Amino acid sequence: MVTDDEAMGRAIALAARGLGTTSPNPVVGCLLLSADGEIVGEGFHAYAGGPHAEIVALAQAGERARGGTAVVTLEPCNHTGRTGPCAQALINAGITRVVIAVDDPTPVAAGGAATLRGSGVQVETGIRRQEAEDGNVAWLTAVRRGRPYVTWKYAATLDGRSAAADGTSQWITSPTSRTDVHKLRSTVDAIVAGVGTVIADDPQLTVRDLRDGSLAIKQPWRVVVDSSGRTPKTARVRDQAAPTWIATAAEVGAGPDGHVDLAALLTELYTRGVRAVLLEGGPTLAGGFLAAGLVDKIVGYIAPKLLGAGQPSLVGAGVTTIAEALELDVSDITQIGPDLRFTASLRQKEN
Amino acid sequence: MVTDDEAMGRAIALAARGLGTTSPNPVVGCLLLSADGEIVGEGFHAYAGGPHAEIVALAQAGERARGGTAVVTLEPCNHTGRTGPCAQALINAGITRVVIAVDDPTPVAAGGAATLRGSGVQVETGIRRQEAEDGNVAWLTAVRRGRPYVTWKYAATLDGRSAAADGTSQWITSPTSRTDVHKLRSTVDAIVAGVGTVIADDPQLTVRDLRDGSLAIKQPWRVVVDSSGRTPKTARVRDQAAPTWIATAAEVGAGPDGHVDLAALLTELYTRGVRAVLLEGGPTLAGGFLAAGLVDKIVGYIAPKLLGAGQPSLVGAGVTTIAEALELDVSDITQIGPDLRFTASLRQKEN
Repeated sequence: MVTDDEAMGRAIALAARGLGTTSPNPVVGCLLLSADGEIVGEGFHAYAGGPHAEIVALAQAGERARGGTAVVTLEPCNHTGRTGPCAQALINAGITRVVIAVDDPTPVAAGGAATLRGSGVQVETGIRRQEAEDGNVAWLTAVRRGRPYVTWKYAATLDGRSAAADGTSQWITSPTSRTDVHKLRSTVDAIVAGVGTVIADDPQLTVRDLRDGSLAIKQPWRVVVDSSGRTPKTARVRDQAAPTWIATAAEVGAGPDGHVDLAALLTELYTRGVRAVLLEGGPTLAGGFLAAGLVDKIVGYIAPKLLGAGQPSLVGAGVTTIAEALELDVSDITQIGPDLRFTASLRQKEN
Repeated sequence: MVTDDEAMGRAIALAARGLGTTSPNPVVGCLLLSADGEIVGEGFHAYAGGPHAEIVALAQAGERARGGTAVVTLEPCNHTGRTGPCAQALINAGITRVVIAVDDPTPVAAGGAATLRGSGVQVETGIRRQEAEDGNVAWLTAVRRGRPYVTWKYAATLDGRSAAADGTSQWITSPTSRTDVHKLRSTVDAIVAGVGTVIADDPQLTVRDLRDGSLAIKQPWRVVVDSSGRTPKTARVRDQAAPTWIATAAEVGAGPDGHVDLAALLTELYTRGVRAVLLEGGPTLAGGFLAAGLVDKIVGYIAPKLLGAGQPSLVGAGVTTIAEALELDVSDITQIGPDLRFTASLRQKEN
């Protein structure tokens, strides 16, 4: 016997296994319980175009699903996309009760709960809603705003420097932190960096195993914000390890300052299916995103070091006086090797 | 029955009650156990010129000390200063065993253990030595180096700014953090600030109850590092709330840059009885102390905010390339209201 709450906890954990590979789709997990409350099927959505979580779980359960309960992290879809509607599949399989954490906010896919109810299926919603929303925060935020969810990642010393006076920055943080960054990269659809960083550090911007340099099978898109097209022909971001987009002002459109319009850039990325973006340097590009209100989450790696000179971690966020400081809600602080990693969201200003 | 270890733990806790009021003396705690192991006396050194911990405990124990054990955090003194030698007092009281955590490193006071042994008293040393050293770290470091123990305290945003672009800095951190700073001030003998900070922020640099502004009974010395004597006549640091020293290059001596020689300043403060200094701003003065290797401990208050512009928390620490970064050993991170407080020591460079 498994309770709805326990089952949803398991479904949320299943859903998380799809992080980084499902875009433009959400992550979804599904548990099927038989009429007497035993787990008879489990599934998660692994990649766009692949079977939805409910379909995977139904295939596993077979006839044992009849008369049972489906526990899903997101409202089952009601539309025929690359796969058929899940609501109908659940009805066809004889499911009599569906437990949902989060309603589907997209007009095209929503309506699954209504379809289910219309066929006499008992539907309950809101079980572990917050936890399921957190697990799908990038996708949910993206579809609600019509632009990708943006995480700004940076590394700095305790006094807020990202490079020394002579420009050296390798390495401010420890190998443990850098490995952690590759894990973070593996959860997004695109990595965005400014052309200044590309010229200064020549990063590859791929997901790699740092022990042997081997590339992960799935690579995020590499996006260079390069207003006037200065990315060197020999830059490592142009190699064959992953697809790359050099986003120029001519292609994307320019803001009032003549540089790439960052909101337009994000809209374009959304159109191309990107739901989660990792913004990695430099300080001026981060300042531009922050000043435009386009950052959702911040992950900072702080090394226990002092420099006292050199490049600041953030430049030009549009703040001129202390009362305008951007306030953060820090949700996590974890020791990563010798460094500290903090995770924060931006507090919404009360205007 | 109390074990030596338990008794020393209690003696170390007693010693800590003297922090901030014993300079130029160390903090010391003493427990007296009767012949059958019961606590018969407790004492700590409360202020220079006042009775030593052993004397307080002996007065409490009276005849019950005879045949008993004295447990002291620091080797009992052997010299007659403003008070008589404690080693002799213990002998006179009939103590037959003395348990010591840390040997006295000062030539003038040392030798207590030898005197005790010479009178047939059994002496054991090193019990909870590290813990007792930590409790006396400012005094021990000061007497070993011949200069005060220096703690650099600063407040900054997550991106390492101590003021916004327009110079505003009140308040970066929360009232809870500012109250914590006043506690920190109460443990030192002198607060040191640069004239730039005095001119920009006009701080009073006193120990106050922030709820009603009332001054603590004991105030640290206020020291303004003011190479050319620019401290305004009306500056709050010149008020009557606490003694103040405007330290000019003419009085202290100048370094190669024409500014106050910071090592000479510390030597002068040591001569005047200062054992613990709290260095509070600004960033350039902190950089000068760090570059000269004169900082022992760092306490940073980090507000969960971003500024992206304005005064950095640290300037000019003598580091030009990443390999020279000053490395810290972070010993504590505590949430103080919405802020984070970290405590760190400087890792010694291997040359």
